[in-house]
Amino acid sequence: MRERDLVGRQGRFIVEGEVTLRLLFSGGARFRAESVLLAPERWPGLAPFLRDDDLPVYLAGKDVMSAVTGFPIHRGVLAVGLRGADPAPDALIPPAPAPALVLGLVGLTNHDNVGGLFRNAAAFGADAVLLDAETCDPLYRKAIRVSAGAALTVPFARAPSGTALIDLAERHGLTPLALTPGGAETLEALEPPPRALLLLGTEGPGLPESVMARARRIRIAMAPGFDSLNVATAGAIALHRLAAERLAGI
Amino acid sequence: MRERDLVGRQGRFIVEGEVTLRLLFSGGARFRAESVLLAPERWPGLAPFLRDDDLPVYLAGKDVMSAVTGFPIHRGVLAVGLRGADPAPDALIPPAPAPALVLGLVGLTNHDNVGGLFRNAAAFGADAVLLDAETCDPLYRKAIRVSAGAALTVPFARAPSGTALIDLAERHGLTPLALTPGGAETLEALEPPPRALLLLGTEGPGLPESVMARARRIRIAMAPGFDSLNVATAGAIALHRLAAERLAGI
Repeated sequence: MRERDLVGRQGRFIVEGEVTLRLLFSGGARFRAESVLLAPERWPGLAPFLRDDDLPVYLAGKDVMSAVTGFPIHRGVLAVGLRGADPAPDALIPPAPAPALVLGLVGLTNHDNVGGLFRNAAAFGADAVLLDAETCDPLYRKAIRVSAGAALTVPFARAPSGTALIDLAERHGLTPLALTPGGAETLEALEPPPRALLLLGTEGPGLPESVMARARRIRIAMAPGFDSLNVATAGAIALHRLAAERLAGI
Repeated sequence: MRERDLVGRQGRFIVEGEVTLRLLFSGGARFRAESVLLAPERWPGLAPFLRDDDLPVYLAGKDVMSAVTGFPIHRGVLAVGLRGADPAPDALIPPAPAPALVLGLVGLTNHDNVGGLFRNAAAFGADAVLLDAETCDPLYRKAIRVSAGAALTVPFARAPSGTALIDLAERHGLTPLALTPGGAETLEALEPPPRALLLLGTEGPGLPESVMARARRIRIAMAPGFDSLNVATAGAIALHRLAAERLAGI
């Protein structure tokens, strides 16, 4: 079975490693485990929170695990998760006048970048991540791994397009900020708006003009001759700046 | 031939792709090309700057290129570079009282992270990157690729250890800043010193205590319950902050 069938059509996803598995059992998680596959030596440590009459736990040596799954198993901890219904994007935005920091991803098809952005969203306390239709699924194995599990904890939802994300921002009183090397304003000079939607596009073509035209265009000041940052890195720098006031004193 | 023999013992390295190849020919580069291997359709575009009587340029179809090199060739542009002698680390530090921003990497063995940090160092105009003996070689193919070529342009040198980096900082009047989740000061509250050595360690064990004890320990403010950033991302946020004054108005 290909991962895109598992994740896309079956509503399931694969969780690797103990830290990520524990996140599935952390309170209030949107997702739950359907079954768990462990190397026998991992059972004693994990048994306390896996004892649930409805949760099958299978034990198998790592060779068998690798043969079953088709990829090399290093840590001896795997689970199948059930994704459930996606929430509506409107439901994830904190109601005004509360502060809000929402990340919007447009056309990001690289699992490393999407996973990294979830990790950064968690680190800086973003309220939600909204994805356009082109952006890849954060519940792919690689994206979950690169996210350090944040893909399971940071709420996310889909909107049809980048312009639908702008509509959403307008509906909820979020200031749309388009991060782009061609931005007129610098991030450094920006007074962070209390309610913001930070929009990121792909490293090559960037955000569509239809999105940027309805947003404030912000750039990160860089050294002359090398205006190139990875999109997840650029997003981290912008989230750090936008969250600074919230996080001050923590 | 294994890459570690080519890079480590032979003083050569592999460059992929046109953008990176062009960097090898940009003025003042420390490195030069020894030979170039191109798919025939790439020759016309690259000929203007490859015409040099001493530089052999071989043309071969992509299938032949892949067979020769042992990895799939997508872009049809490869070169062998010559690294030459490493500079002394002292030679790379701008003399006082000029401003200085130097990145020090301790124990970073992941080519993605080292490549990403070179990219970030270039983006924020760091003067040099200094590596301890454990940190992996920035001239590995993957590191060069992830660096977007910055491994070829940002000056770097080796020091034997993290404490040798601190000695160097003291010798040159650089303020050593150790980035660590346990730092007493936050990056946000820090008044960026005009001459700084930013020290980064691995994500798990972090910087050795022997290094941190002689540095100012700085942390990035993060949301409670998730103090986890990728080391290249954390480095980008700190470089961005330390370079802010230099880059203001660009």
